[in-house]
Amino acid sequence: MKAVASEEGISESEVLSEIASGRMVIPLNPAHDTVRAVGVGRAVRTKVNANLGRSPTNSGEADELDKLSCALKHGADFVMDLSVGGDISAIRRRMIDASPAPLGTVPVYETIALLDGDVPSMDPSFLIDVVRRQAEEGVDFMTLHAGLLSKHVDLALKRKMGIVSRGGSIMAEWMKKHGRENPLYERWDEVMDILAEHDVTVSLGDGLRPGCLADASDAAQFAELDVLGELVERCRKRGVQVMVEGPGHVPFDQIKANMEREQAVCAGAPFYVLGPVVTDIAPAYDHIVAAIGATAAATYGASLLCYVTPAEHLGLPDMEEVRQGLAAFRIAAHAGDVARGLKGARDIDDRMSDARVRFDWDAQFDCALDPDAARARWLRTRPAEEGACHDDDHCSMCGKAFCAVRTSKRIRRLMEESAAADGK
Amino acid sequence: MKAVASEEGISESEVLSEIASGRMVIPLNPAHDTVRAVGVGRAVRTKVNANLGRSPTNSGEADELDKLSCALKHGADFVMDLSVGGDISAIRRRMIDASPAPLGTVPVYETIALLDGDVPSMDPSFLIDVVRRQAEEGVDFMTLHAGLLSKHVDLALKRKMGIVSRGGSIMAEWMKKHGRENPLYERWDEVMDILAEHDVTVSLGDGLRPGCLADASDAAQFAELDVLGELVERCRKRGVQVMVEGPGHVPFDQIKANMEREQAVCAGAPFYVLGPVVTDIAPAYDHIVAAIGATAAATYGASLLCYVTPAEHLGLPDMEEVRQGLAAFRIAAHAGDVARGLKGARDIDDRMSDARVRFDWDAQFDCALDPDAARARWLRTRPAEEGACHDDDHCSMCGKAFCAVRTSKRIRRLMEESAAADGK
Repeated sequence: MKAVASEEGISESEVLSEIASGRMVIPLNPAHDTVRAVGVGRAVRTKVNANLGRSPTNSGEADELDKLSCALKHGADFVMDLSVGGDISAIRRRMIDASPAPLGTVPVYETIALLDGDVPSMDPSFLIDVVRRQAEEGVDFMTLHAGLLSKHVDLALKRKMGIVSRGGSIMAEWMKKHGRENPLYERWDEVMDILAEHDVTVSLGDGLRPGCLADASDAAQFAELDVLGELVERCRKRGVQVMVEGPGHVPFDQIKANMEREQAVCAGAPFYVLGPVVTDIAPAYDHIVAAIGATAAATYGASLLCYVTPAEHLGLPDMEEVRQGLAAFRIAAHAGDVARGLKGARDIDDRMSDARVRFDWDAQFDCALDPDAARARWLRTRPAEEGACHDDDHCSMCGKAFCAVRTSKRIRRLMEESAAADGK
Repeated sequence: MKAVASEEGISESEVLSEIASGRMVIPLNPAHDTVRAVGVGRAVRTKVNANLGRSPTNSGEADELDKLSCALKHGADFVMDLSVGGDISAIRRRMIDASPAPLGTVPVYETIALLDGDVPSMDPSFLIDVVRRQAEEGVDFMTLHAGLLSKHVDLALKRKMGIVSRGGSIMAEWMKKHGRENPLYERWDEVMDILAEHDVTVSLGDGLRPGCLADASDAAQFAELDVLGELVERCRKRGVQVMVEGPGHVPFDQIKANMEREQAVCAGAPFYVLGPVVTDIAPAYDHIVAAIGATAAATYGASLLCYVTPAEHLGLPDMEEVRQGLAAFRIAAHAGDVARGLKGARDIDDRMSDARVRFDWDAQFDCALDPDAARARWLRTRPAEEGACHDDDHCSMCGKAFCAVRTSKRIRRLMEESAAADGK
C-alpha cells in the first residue's frame, strides 16, 4: 500500500480506504517474489495489460520471454500468460520469474490443454486443482468465467457471433454437454478459499462479451454482468480482491453507458476492459480501433485496459506488434486520465508543450511516451541545412519561414517593443 | 448533386435541401476538369482529408505526386496541397491535374513563399491576387484565416503555445507589424466575389486553434469562432459555400462541447477538424492520438476530418506515414458514423462479422478497410499445419482447440440435437 501511495502520489489512507471499499485492488501473490505492487482503480492512474502466451500453432517459450521483455520495456503495468499450447506450466513459471509486473492467467486454458482440447472430458475438480497449483506457483490474478450460467448460453447463441471468449465458450460447451450448471459458479466458495489462501486477485471473466458491434449491449452480456455483480459481493465478504472484465466490440456511443452500468451493478469494482473495439472492419489496425474505445472506457469508468495489437483477429502478435499495442494503449490510458481530470495527469503534457515552445528537442523526447521512436523519426527528416546539432529552432514540417512557433515569438517581441514605446 | 445522392444513398431532394441550408457543401471548382463531387455534411458519410505538399527543407514535386497517388489509393476523400517551398504553383497545377479528389490550398502560403518568407512585406492586394489565380487554376476549396482579428492576437499570446497555425501566425504578425486589421476580414466582400465567380468553397481557417491541451477551449479560440460564425452568415448571403475549421489539441472530454459550440455559432456549417489530438505526449504516434479525438469529433458534430500522420510534430510525412494516417482517420470517420447512427453505416461491420462466423477469409478481406494489409498480416502467421488453402477454420491466435467461434458452433449443434431429442 505504501508503494502504491508513493507511486501514485496519493495518501496511504486513501489507498487503504479504496481497497477497503473494493474500488481498488492490488494484485500481488506473495509467492511471486519479484513482483511490484500496482494499484488498479479509479483513484489511481489507468493501467495497461499486455496479453502474451503461445498458441498451439505459433511461437515458443523463448519467443514469449522476448515478448515479455518487450512488453515490460514499453510500459506494460500487467501481463497475462494466455498460452494455450506447448508446456504451459513451464512457460508460466519462467514468465513469473522474469516479470516484476503482476502476472495473470486463465486457468481453464491450461486445464483444457492438458486434456488435449477435449472440453467435455473436463472434471470440475481437475479445473479447481489447476487453479490451486497456479496460485501456489505465484500467479497474481486469474480470469475465471464463473458468471456465465447455463441459461445465458441460449441467449448468446441467438447472436450474430455467438460466444467469442475462449474461456466462456469452453464453460458453455461443458455445461451444454453435461446438462449441468457452471462448475465455477457452483463451487465458488471452494474457489474463493484457494484465492484467499494465496492472496490471488480474481478477474471475473466476461464469457459473453460481444464479438461484433451487432451483439453489443445485448441481453446475454447484461445477464452475465448481473451474476458478476453477485460474485463481486461474495468475494468482498470473503476478503478476496476482485475486478470485473468487460467488452469487447462496442460502438463508440455505447461505451459510456457500458462503463456506468458495470460500476453500478458491480458496486465500483475495478473494470478491466478488452478494447473496446469500435468497428469490426479494420483488421491489421485493431490496436488503433481499440485504443479509440479504450480512451472512452478510461474516461467513463474502466481502471485497467487490456491492449489489442495489430494482429488481433488475424494471428498471434510478434514483438513489434506487442510494442505497437502498448503504445496505442498507453495513449488511451493517459488520454482517459487527462479527460477524467485525474490529479496531475496533464502535467507531462504541459512539460511537453513548454519544451516545444523552447524548441528543446531533448526535453521533448524525455516527455515522449516512446522517446526512442520519437527521436528516431525526428532525426530521419530533420532540417537538412542545420547540420547535426540538437537545438534546431524548427522542424522539417514547416521549415524556418513557416514555423508558427517562431512567428509567435516574433509577434511577442513586436508587441513588447510596441508596449515599451507606448510606455515612454 | 445527383452524384452525391447516389454515392451516399440519400435522395437528391435531401442533398438539395442540405446544400440550401448550408449544412452541406460540395467543394468543386468547374475549372478542375477531373474532379468528382464529394459531399461534406452531417447528412452524409464523414470524410477524410489528407494534407500533402513539400516544405522548404524536404521532399520535392515527384515525391508529392507519389504521395498523392498513395493518399488516393488509401481512401482520401479530399487532399490539400500545403506546399510552402519549391515551385508551389507548378506542384499545385500537377496535383490538380492528377487528383479526382477535390483539392484545397492555403493561399497565404504561396503568397509568403513568393515573398521569400518576409511576412511584413505582404501587400494585401497581392494576397488577393494569389487567391484569384488559384481559383482560376481550379482549386476546389481554400483555407482563409479571415476570422482572426487584431484584438484576438493579444489573447492568443497569453497562452502556453501562442499561435500554432501557420496561416494564423502569418496574419497575426502582419497585423501587429502594421497596426492594422486582418486584410481578409476587411476585404471579405472582394474575396467572396472571387470565390463566388469561380465556385470555390471557403474553409474558414482557425488561426487560433489550441496547440496544446492547456490552451484548449480558451477565450482566444472562441473569440475567433464567433467571427467565423459571422463570416459563415455573410458567405451564405453571398452564395459562397462555406465550411469551418476547428481544433487542434483538445482533451477528450472537451470535444463534444467544442463540436456543439461550432454547430451552434456557425449555424450548422460543416465542421472540418484537425485531429483533435487528445494528448501532447505521443510524437511518432500522433495518428493514433488524433484518431481518438477524431472519432469523438465525428460522433458529435464534425463532417470532415483532416488526417494526422505519425510524423506530426516531427517532420514532413513520407508515403508510408500518409498510408498510416489515412487508415487511422478512415477508422475514426467510420466509427463516428456508426456511433451517430448514420443510416447503413454499420452494414459493412455486419458483413465482416458474418464472414468471420463463416471463416470466409476472402470475404473478411473484402470487407476490410485495408484488404492488402489484413491479408498480408494473416498470411504471415496463418496456421502452419493447414497448408496453403484459404478456408482455414481458425487462426494462429487461438488454434483449433481454443477457437471460440468453432466451439460456439459445436455448442449450437449440441443444443439442436438436444432440442430434436426433446421433440420426439
